[in-house]
Amino acid sequence: MVPIQVPVVERILGANDRVAEENRARLDAASVFAVNFMASPGAGKTSLIVRTIEALSSSVRIGVVEGDTTATTLDAEQVSEAGVPVVGVNTGGSCHLDAVMVNQALSSLPLEKLDLVIVENVGNLVCPAAFRLGTHADVLIASVPEGDDKPYKYPKIYRNIDALVLNKTDLLPWVSFNLESFRKGVEMLNPAVSLFPLSCYTGADLYRWLDWLSLRCKSMTSTAASAGRPRA
Amino acid sequence: MVPIQVPVVERILGANDRVAEENRARLDAASVFAVNFMASPGAGKTSLIVRTIEALSSSVRIGVVEGDTTATTLDAEQVSEAGVPVVGVNTGGSCHLDAVMVNQALSSLPLEKLDLVIVENVGNLVCPAAFRLGTHADVLIASVPEGDDKPYKYPKIYRNIDALVLNKTDLLPWVSFNLESFRKGVEMLNPAVSLFPLSCYTGADLYRWLDWLSLRCKSMTSTAASAGRPRA
Repeated sequence: MVPIQVPVVERILGANDRVAEENRARLDAASVFAVNFMASPGAGKTSLIVRTIEALSSSVRIGVVEGDTTATTLDAEQVSEAGVPVVGVNTGGSCHLDAVMVNQALSSLPLEKLDLVIVENVGNLVCPAAFRLGTHADVLIASVPEGDDKPYKYPKIYRNIDALVLNKTDLLPWVSFNLESFRKGVEMLNPAVSLFPLSCYTGADLYRWLDWLSLRCKSMTSTAASAGRPRA
Repeated sequence: MVPIQVPVVERILGANDRVAEENRARLDAASVFAVNFMASPGAGKTSLIVRTIEALSSSVRIGVVEGDTTATTLDAEQVSEAGVPVVGVNTGGSCHLDAVMVNQALSSLPLEKLDLVIVENVGNLVCPAAFRLGTHADVLIASVPEGDDKPYKYPKIYRNIDALVLNKTDLLPWVSFNLESFRKGVEMLNPAVSLFPLSCYTGADLYRWLDWLSLRCKSMTSTAASAGRPRA
């Protein structure tokens, strides 16, 4: 007998993609722009979320989904202190968020009262790259002390992002990091990506990132308004 | 009919553990001490390997297994320049090494002419923690700019290690990192672990780590000698 080959990985990804499309439709219907923050552990996802809330929350209504591999609520607490609604997702040890987890989290957020949802994925440069969540933009937060070789070593995640934040530029004088080599690696993989070198620690150069993000939120809202969709 | 539940994950781990035991037996038979280096991307696994080779290779014969998610040979080249045998393992996108990959790599190393094998796992704090490789010690390389909260956020990997290197201590004056809070988190999860704060960049405080490692290599060799096993 010929053994039956079951393409398990493809089937799981297919199911994930269907839920990701459902998430996108839900976000679109509510005119909410959503971004997926991916990074190594400690690159500064939570710090960038907090800085973004501080800078934009007077004009953009923000909600956050916090992914964690364990039941820890450290990041969720830190973001919650910034005064926006936060939903924590415990992946139960899994190395990435998937569309179903985000679907459940979106049900716990007041989408009709939001303009932007930031999803903080699990700190990992490998697994999150394989699972679409239904967000409008994938953002990678790299950081200076990780080294300038990361685009060359983790090409998959660099290839499929819409924006790249290079955090911790305040450490440039103290570490060996060649910005041109980093930029060259990024351009080779993803010539269209928007690159934002900045420092969440000092607050330096955040404005270009904030412009990029708020422009996309406003564009979403104005598209909804011109289509006659009601806003809360 | 009651559906049959197949514990797939358990079965895969069972198979992995059997190969891990085979790896251990092979290493023991050759009197080779083996360590598994795990870390976030950019924490300094390769730098620590190079520093260790520079310091110990006159007295300890070292071989290296370099795990990577892609076909990049950047790390393998850097280690090879340090003048020891290196075998690269491409995980084909997988987020961790497993015992079978290490088994194949060991076949390509001249084990009978080595005292120490260092295995560099994929840069990831989640997946590598779940797969035993058959090495004698699991070593985690954390780094100062990642932040002092990592033991609290990635408890599984911190719980199951034998040694913890805290790299990039030269950056302590420039970042917000509370060494006591870090140490407290580590002690809560793993009170017996050996902690080595050091800097691969400046070379500061490497000696305690080198002592720990070379003592274990020597102990392995002398056990083999007292058992009458021949050495190459």
